[in-house]
Amino acid sequence: MHRSAAALDGEMNLVAGAFSSSPEKSREQGDNLHLDPDRVYDTYEEMADAEAERPDGIDVVSIVTPNFLHHDVARTFIDRGFHVICDKPMTTTLEDAEDLCRRVDEQDVVFCLTHNYAGYPLVKQARALVEQGRLGALRKIVVEYPQGWLNRRLEAEGNKQASWRTDPDKAGAGALGDIGTHAEHLARYVTGLSLERMCADVGTVVEGRPVDDDASILARYEGGVRGLIHVSQISAGEENNLRLRVYGTEAGLDWRQEDPHRLTLLTDINGEAPQQIYSHGRASLADSVQPFVRTPQGHPEGFIEAFANLYRSAAHAIAAHEAGVEPEPWARDFPTVQDGAAGVHFIETALESSEQEAWVDASYTPPRT
Amino acid sequence: MHRSAAALDGEMNLVAGAFSSSPEKSREQGDNLHLDPDRVYDTYEEMADAEAERPDGIDVVSIVTPNFLHHDVARTFIDRGFHVICDKPMTTTLEDAEDLCRRVDEQDVVFCLTHNYAGYPLVKQARALVEQGRLGALRKIVVEYPQGWLNRRLEAEGNKQASWRTDPDKAGAGALGDIGTHAEHLARYVTGLSLERMCADVGTVVEGRPVDDDASILARYEGGVRGLIHVSQISAGEENNLRLRVYGTEAGLDWRQEDPHRLTLLTDINGEAPQQIYSHGRASLADSVQPFVRTPQGHPEGFIEAFANLYRSAAHAIAAHEAGVEPEPWARDFPTVQDGAAGVHFIETALESSEQEAWVDASYTPPRT
Amino acid sequence: MHRSAAALDGEMNLVAGAFSSSPEKSREQGDNLHLDPDRVYDTYEEMADAEAERPDGIDVVSIVTPNFLHHDVARTFIDRGFHVICDKPMTTTLEDAEDLCRRVDEQDVVFCLTHNYAGYPLVKQARALVEQGRLGALRKIVVEYPQGWLNRRLEAEGNKQASWRTDPDKAGAGALGDIGTHAEHLARYVTGLSLERMCADVGTVVEGRPVDDDASILARYEGGVRGLIHVSQISAGEENNLRLRVYGTEAGLDWRQEDPHRLTLLTDINGEAPQQIYSHGRASLADSVQPFVRTPQGHPEGFIEAFANLYRSAAHAIAAHEAGVEPEPWARDFPTVQDGAAGVHFIETALESSEQEAWVDASYTPPRT
Amino acid sequence: MHRSAAALDGEMNLVAGAFSSSPEKSREQGDNLHLDPDRVYDTYEEMADAEAERPDGIDVVSIVTPNFLHHDVARTFIDRGFHVICDKPMTTTLEDAEDLCRRVDEQDVVFCLTHNYAGYPLVKQARALVEQGRLGALRKIVVEYPQGWLNRRLEAEGNKQASWRTDPDKAGAGALGDIGTHAEHLARYVTGLSLERMCADVGTVVEGRPVDDDASILARYEGGVRGLIHVSQISAGEENNLRLRVYGTEAGLDWRQEDPHRLTLLTDINGEAPQQIYSHGRASLADSVQPFVRTPQGHPEGFIEAFANLYRSAAHAIAAHEAGVEPEPWARDFPTVQDGAAGVHFIETALESSEQEAWVDASYTPPRT
Repeated sequence: MHRSAAALDGEMNLVAGAFSSSPEKSREQGDNLHLDPDRVYDTYEEMADAEAERPDGIDVVSIVTPNFLHHDVARTFIDRGFHVICDKPMTTTLEDAEDLCRRVDEQDVVFCLTHNYAGYPLVKQARALVEQGRLGALRKIVVEYPQGWLNRRLEAEGNKQASWRTDPDKAGAGALGDIGTHAEHLARYVTGLSLERMCADVGTVVEGRPVDDDASILARYEGGVRGLIHVSQISAGEENNLRLRVYGTEAGLDWRQEDPHRLTLLTDINGEAPQQIYSHGRASLADSVQPFVRTPQGHPEGFIEAFANLYRSAAHAIAAHEAGVEPEPWARDFPTVQDGAAGVHFIETALESSEQEAWVDASYTPPRT
Repeated sequence: MHRSAAALDGEMNLVAGAFSSSPEKSREQGDNLHLDPDRVYDTYEEMADAEAERPDGIDVVSIVTPNFLHHDVARTFIDRGFHVICDKPMTTTLEDAEDLCRRVDEQDVVFCLTHNYAGYPLVKQARALVEQGRLGALRKIVVEYPQGWLNRRLEAEGNKQASWRTDPDKAGAGALGDIGTHAEHLARYVTGLSLERMCADVGTVVEGRPVDDDASILARYEGGVRGLIHVSQISAGEENNLRLRVYGTEAGLDWRQEDPHRLTLLTDINGEAPQQIYSHGRASLADSVQPFVRTPQGHPEGFIEAFANLYRSAAHAIAAHEAGVEPEPWARDFPTVQDGAAGVHFIETALESSEQEAWVDASYTPPRT
Repeated sequence: MHRSAAALDGEMNLVAGAFSSSPEKSREQGDNLHLDPDRVYDTYEEMADAEAERPDGIDVVSIVTPNFLHHDVARTFIDRGFHVICDKPMTTTLEDAEDLCRRVDEQDVVFCLTHNYAGYPLVKQARALVEQGRLGALRKIVVEYPQGWLNRRLEAEGNKQASWRTDPDKAGAGALGDIGTHAEHLARYVTGLSLERMCADVGTVVEGRPVDDDASILARYEGGVRGLIHVSQISAGEENNLRLRVYGTEAGLDWRQEDPHRLTLLTDINGEAPQQIYSHGRASLADSVQPFVRTPQGHPEGFIEAFANLYRSAAHAIAAHEAGVEPEPWARDFPTVQDGAAGVHFIETALESSEQEAWVDASYTPPRT
Repeated sequence: MHRSAAALDGEMNLVAGAFSSSPEKSREQGDNLHLDPDRVYDTYEEMADAEAERPDGIDVVSIVTPNFLHHDVARTFIDRGFHVICDKPMTTTLEDAEDLCRRVDEQDVVFCLTHNYAGYPLVKQARALVEQGRLGALRKIVVEYPQGWLNRRLEAEGNKQASWRTDPDKAGAGALGDIGTHAEHLARYVTGLSLERMCADVGTVVEGRPVDDDASILARYEGGVRGLIHVSQISAGEENNLRLRVYGTEAGLDWRQEDPHRLTLLTDINGEAPQQIYSHGRASLADSVQPFVRTPQGHPEGFIEAFANLYRSAAHAIAAHEAGVEPEPWARDFPTVQDGAAGVHFIETALESSEQEAWVDASYTPPRT
């Protein structure tokens, strides 16, 4: 997925890699990708060292390992001055997350966390509507993310994705990390609001699974905005049903990832305006959204294109950084290392609240040097 | 609405009434309805007495007053042996609710509470799918009911509906009573499961409003089934978006009141079956659902018809009761006085949990003599 | 359906009838309906004579027989000065249709033809948008009506509805009459435009069926507006999928009977406005539509309520007629005897065009005295 | 779009090109794409000659010029033994189309026509359902393709796409060529049926436009299957609403390009099965469809991915051809030069039928050597 996303716009080339913990498999994969064998490495440490030496070394590395490796790999590359694109959740502990925040600042590199749902044009339109004040003062946020694929113990049936994602040593948290952080980020990205308090109900539904697979969270955002977050991987029959609703004094909005090219503006039912459907590729999208649209109206873009929007912005941000100039606004529009730390803090806070069966403080400010 | 619902199937006639706290208005309304002026009363007490005397007196009374009057009116008619159809929430205190439970039992009358959403054929199909085991063992229930009509203080602008519904003296609770009880009943009706524990976050968003207008509730149902209930009357732009999702080990289901003639069976995404859409009027509906369908496939029935389904079942139950025979199964399919008590208990428990900011016991067994 | 529609608003009472060609069955049905046995008749002629004699005789008769009887029954009642509500298609020959036009004029009675789809509030909103010029000058009309219920020879399996509807002696035409006239009327009602030319492709798909069950028609409306009409009763799996789309220089609109409480305004994709969804019960509906709405936003009304809207308008028109006053505008909003003649002309023209495999003149002006 | 589609799967590299009729612009574009300047050409003839000489010459050329150039460019490359990927409509005359058919056969090259909608996985699922007999014997095909973007004379406002697409010298036909051929191909691809007869109503709605912008066609397919094709570029507010419905004796199907990741199986309404929704990425898709799916369930793929599916199949077909082996079945699944000829024949036949206002023979067999 990362490879397709990077390839789509032709702004990045894959030229080197360490593709597996098995050196053999790494080389095999390098072959499949027609890479120069000299640049296919046995370990990421070796890769970081060697590429740092090369005059034509890589500019940026993509980290798509299981979660428990993110911190070490990211640190290794950041410390050698490479820019980083990293999958979420950023790390498995808050300590590691904050460590990355500090290193990114110290090394002055670009760090992009792939909360890819923030790459959808209609999500950016939602954010634009909030910023334009079309919703009035915000009052309530409902974000949900039901999936059903872990409805049974796939991890016991040899499913590779299921295996590491439900292994606490490799994944850290379960549903909270895998999809909860997406939900938390999406709400924060669109509304600009951070969590202040929460009361979580995190649990494991499928017997024998050592990580959480279902979570519901009562929340309070900055300014007292009421919130509700619920995510699940055991909701039988649900595919990837991430949805965000935001309500303000004047209007609401509703976006669903499974129909990502539309956004509903829920106009006040006591008013004269009928409901409005924003759709992909039309002139009605905000100017700030237009750079993220590749196809004309009615030609759906999907998951890969949203992912590619992050890659393209990061590529431009990196190029601007290298050139010592300010990137254009759209090229600064991707999740950062601070977003990553906020995500890890969210996971830890939810687990703590659930264990205590109590409301807890959820406010957080990531470290900046 | 009650009048249309009662009229639709021609099984009840409106022949008497006390239509207003103002005798004048009551008489005017009686005129409009072409009623015999002798049977238009100044007060419900007068009506109960007079109709009890008449050889051709009414069989059943519909109580559609503001909530705070339900108990007194119901008691008055029950005690004279009349059957009762009563709007929800049943009463404003649990004590009153339990009092009605006992009186209904003692007087052996039929009591129907108008949780009208339970009248939709596709809701009954949802219940049938659960009963048939099509979902497997239940694991999670999500019921939500966002509205936006009270997004501003309509009650301060002379809106009559808003005025009494946000007046604690007339309505008791706010959103919890007005729509929360519908949500709670719908989930219980479809799944057959009662609440065991809850942690509620009930609040008032619109300044100056003396009752709750937004509530989110973490829940645990019988057998440890996880639950989430959220209702709101300040979700700008939402119309009447009651929705129920239930997930089991084998499949899930999804029903939305704004498209009431369809029901989605969310088949296991790891399985071979595509998703299934049940729709109104087709042979694929369960036998138990068929008596509630009036129109052929593709001819939508709506809110009034669902309401009328309660009235029709109650009418048949009353006729059977009078005849001393067992009603057919479909004629027993309406919410009872015990459902009403459970609803009032739900309101009180949610308010208590929210005030304590804590999980509380939510189990309840209504009194039966 | 007619009985429910008439009952819903309590403005008509069923007091007399001839319910079957079998006197016995007629009496049985009268009993079921708790009618005075003196007013349950063996034949419609007897009924017309007797009711004309009674001081408390009926005001209006509903004709819901198979099509071939409409003309005789209608004539019988019109000639005695009764108002008439008649099912569609109005007659099985144009000669009969025009005969009714003349009699209605001569007897000065109210005649309502039950093209019930014109009773939906959102259809009336579509008409209001056209009248307000929101679409600009009209350019194209697409109306379709696929059903699948006659996908096999139900008429050979004892299905009563299928039997008479596919019997040319009882129904006249097949799909063209049963649903084609609805489609033609809906387009004309919303746009105000009549057909000028057509080229039809009418056929019978199910072997052994003596009437048409599928028809597609190229059309030209007044002013050169391009049109397409297609109806089918053999489109497997379709329920009752009547849909109208109208396109103008400025915008388009889209309405579907299976989701009748919504209407999409397709705003110009080169413009700034997102698409608009009008929905039932909101303030955004035109003033002319509001009288046809019974329930608040988000409480769906359906097929029976649309039907009831015709009955209610006719009831008011009749009352106004009896009182010698002008009915309010909404009470004049129902299909007339002239609409019925236009429908029968449409059937005959489509059959003729299809037989000739050629474009033919489709213009028509019903007779008025 | 072609570039993104080719890049997505990393199976083709863009290494050479003639990018404009202006040599300067061509070189500029070559620069933007970081191409070797030696392989950026002033004309396609020069490119064909030079690449044919190079030992590392291109394998395949993509032709994405305005339609009137397709034939010359294609011929030039085919004759030098290059494989060709060509946009539709293939040529502006049937003579040219048949010329290409013969040359492709003679030179034994791979030729892929980019009817990209055939690349959607759910379109392929539709085809699989037909092949599996799930619809029974086919009876009716309805394909429609309304757009609204040419609702006004954009071509007079400097819109580049509109300018050449409405210029008969550059485009040939208007809507018929631009989108009508997509519609015709989609129906043929899914059903396997060719047209036999048609009666077309082709016209120009926007004044001053020298090509057709709206067309409706009555059709008869092989075996007497009834058909209806309508396409439009003046349907205000429509985006890119290609839709295909197919009805058989047992079931129907319904697919819409604007929600391309779902497909409805319209089960017989007289039967027991509810409607079925096939969706992207689930195990319920046919084995033949699986190779065309890149993302898991609920992660929408869109227009570019469908396009990329053609490119990927063509790439594999070319590789197999070069290796002298049979490509896998999925790598043969793309539109051919014969499909292109059928499309051009369709355009010419529709124009002829419309001019004659008559049914005409529409059968066609492309030449094969």
